[in-house]
Amino acid sequence: MKIVRKYILSIICVLGFIQLNAQEKGIPTKGFAVYETNGDFKEYDFTRHAVGEHDIEIEIMYAGICHSDLHHVKEDWGKEEFPLVPGHEIAGRVIKVGDKVTKFKVGDYAGIGCMINSCGQCEFCDGDKEQYCKGVVMTYHDHDQFNNDELTQGGYSNKYVVTEDFAISIPKNADMEKVAPLFCAGITVYSPIMYSGVKKGTKVGVAGYGGLGHMAVQYAVSLGAEVTVFDITEDKRADAKRMGAVKYVNVNNPEDLKGLDNSLDFIISTIPVNTYDPYMYMKMLKLDGEMCIVGLPALDGIVTIGIDKFIWQGNRKVYGSQIGGIKETQEMLDYSVKHNIYPEVEVIQPDGAAITEAYRKVFDGKVKFRYVIDMQRLK
Amino acid sequence: MKIVRKYILSIICVLGFIQLNAQEKGIPTKGFAVYETNGDFKEYDFTRHAVGEHDIEIEIMYAGICHSDLHHVKEDWGKEEFPLVPGHEIAGRVIKVGDKVTKFKVGDYAGIGCMINSCGQCEFCDGDKEQYCKGVVMTYHDHDQFNNDELTQGGYSNKYVVTEDFAISIPKNADMEKVAPLFCAGITVYSPIMYSGVKKGTKVGVAGYGGLGHMAVQYAVSLGAEVTVFDITEDKRADAKRMGAVKYVNVNNPEDLKGLDNSLDFIISTIPVNTYDPYMYMKMLKLDGEMCIVGLPALDGIVTIGIDKFIWQGNRKVYGSQIGGIKETQEMLDYSVKHNIYPEVEVIQPDGAAITEAYRKVFDGKVKFRYVIDMQRLK
Repeated sequence: MKIVRKYILSIICVLGFIQLNAQEKGIPTKGFAVYETNGDFKEYDFTRHAVGEHDIEIEIMYAGICHSDLHHVKEDWGKEEFPLVPGHEIAGRVIKVGDKVTKFKVGDYAGIGCMINSCGQCEFCDGDKEQYCKGVVMTYHDHDQFNNDELTQGGYSNKYVVTEDFAISIPKNADMEKVAPLFCAGITVYSPIMYSGVKKGTKVGVAGYGGLGHMAVQYAVSLGAEVTVFDITEDKRADAKRMGAVKYVNVNNPEDLKGLDNSLDFIISTIPVNTYDPYMYMKMLKLDGEMCIVGLPALDGIVTIGIDKFIWQGNRKVYGSQIGGIKETQEMLDYSVKHNIYPEVEVIQPDGAAITEAYRKVFDGKVKFRYVIDMQRLK
Repeated sequence: MKIVRKYILSIICVLGFIQLNAQEKGIPTKGFAVYETNGDFKEYDFTRHAVGEHDIEIEIMYAGICHSDLHHVKEDWGKEEFPLVPGHEIAGRVIKVGDKVTKFKVGDYAGIGCMINSCGQCEFCDGDKEQYCKGVVMTYHDHDQFNNDELTQGGYSNKYVVTEDFAISIPKNADMEKVAPLFCAGITVYSPIMYSGVKKGTKVGVAGYGGLGHMAVQYAVSLGAEVTVFDITEDKRADAKRMGAVKYVNVNNPEDLKGLDNSLDFIISTIPVNTYDPYMYMKMLKLDGEMCIVGLPALDGIVTIGIDKFIWQGNRKVYGSQIGGIKETQEMLDYSVKHNIYPEVEVIQPDGAAITEAYRKVFDGKVKFRYVIDMQRLK
């Protein structure tokens, strides 16, 4: 009997050790990282924390390349830790669920956006605005104090482990190849468009017609708004019309800019560079109009607005917006799939050289409109 | 018979000539002007246009000294023409009305604020927001293209001639000594307080506790708001409490500033100098909160807001506001008289030295809270 007990105890210990070991070892992950600010991507193997009881493990199918990834890589927004795996537009398949997970089962599709945790206790978390929580944990280049105190790495990789509360359910009928950018580009413009009450007949301006801008055009058009698109090139004029805009303004063409003052109800600025004048857009707002800034350029030399400008353009409101809460992100996704609203994507190989090349094109404004890395092809 | 006709014709001609002459000569007016930017006031005699068919002539009883008068005198907002008679807070008695005037009769009380005309045809004029009309004519230091193309001079004088559409009816029970500042300081804060929907329980911040600020406190308190006052001195702490504020913050005292982030629904900044940080106040806004800027400092070195700040403090709106339309100004006046809301004034003599001295005190922030010149005592 003693031998049996000893034997059973040994088995329990071994199993415990194996489990502990697995937990300690976590999930081996292959990704693409930059090792310095030059934007050269190379393969990088790392480990994510093991699947906890509230976590799900996602096998990443697609990862979007967001302009803000470039800002991080270039340290435009502050110092980074290298190697750095960017990526906060993630869509994939659930391959493992923790014991207490209720929202997902193995085989479901799930997405991750810019944040993967928050304190869960403050007024922002209570109000479904987790993005404003002081403890919010970003999907990459952050420390998740609420889950293994892990240094987070992003979606240019084959796996992600995330608490189910911060994963979005992707319906089976979604276009998986295109869905990933919705979790950043989509929600970032959807949220203020809804917040400012854009509806049928609203005269909307979309400043900056890239990854975010082309999503804003689609949402606004779907709501019945009359959309004017602003960019700095002739190359996208036809695209704007194709997506339903009533007007395209090349701001480098003075003729295009005529007659626009005091003509728009709502403007969303997605411009990610410091080479524009917000006041030019403020002047285009009608009385009671609103302008939302979602494009965040490099902080060094950031564009500013003199307080006199608010007075000259009185009774027009300016505000900023950060992505959206998890509840609203789910709402955005469901709305997008229902209305067949997706980014226009160019799918690239999971390959250091391909990602590096894509970065260069995003930097040069040569992308139409979003690169998505097909992580499934990763060996 | 011929002689009689000739005689009658002569009389008509003479009367016509006299009338024409009177019109050409206009209304002799005594005022106080600065002749250069030094802020030294001296007597100045000038002529206002004669009373047209839609005009009223007001014998000015009281004229307020607004902080913005100092900005004009110092050319903080651009070049001025001298001599310059400031003053856009005017209360007086109607002593003459044009043939087609319907709103006023001789003996009524009337007030004038910051503007005295506008185009009357644009969407802003149609929408009772004349202050945003491109053709708006300011009460002083402007050319009235709609009425005699006159160079306007302000209320530090004994007479004003204005079209009845831009004069405000002052009820007989108003406190005439205190009513003048309502037409600038009053409406400038009343309008955004109403625009942002301040009501019972709204947590309101009033930044800058001077002429405008102490009006904002009174309106917000009258609506049932919980008001926090911000200024840079200890001298006004008791005043804020007396006027119904729940908290007074001396922003030079770090202890006072603790715990204020994310605590206010609405902030109105009346600060007229460039020595503050708007972001400090933006951070105090709760989600969905609004901040209105009405204080306009010198344009040289104007305070700015980086666009990143809007994103960090997302879903909080910043806007500016200019006075209010004529309809709203009348509403503000009626509300103020009904609720016994007036500025706290110190009445000074109509005397160059007294006005010069008052300017110095306003500049040094030593006024509680508004100087009013008693123009009736002018010899």
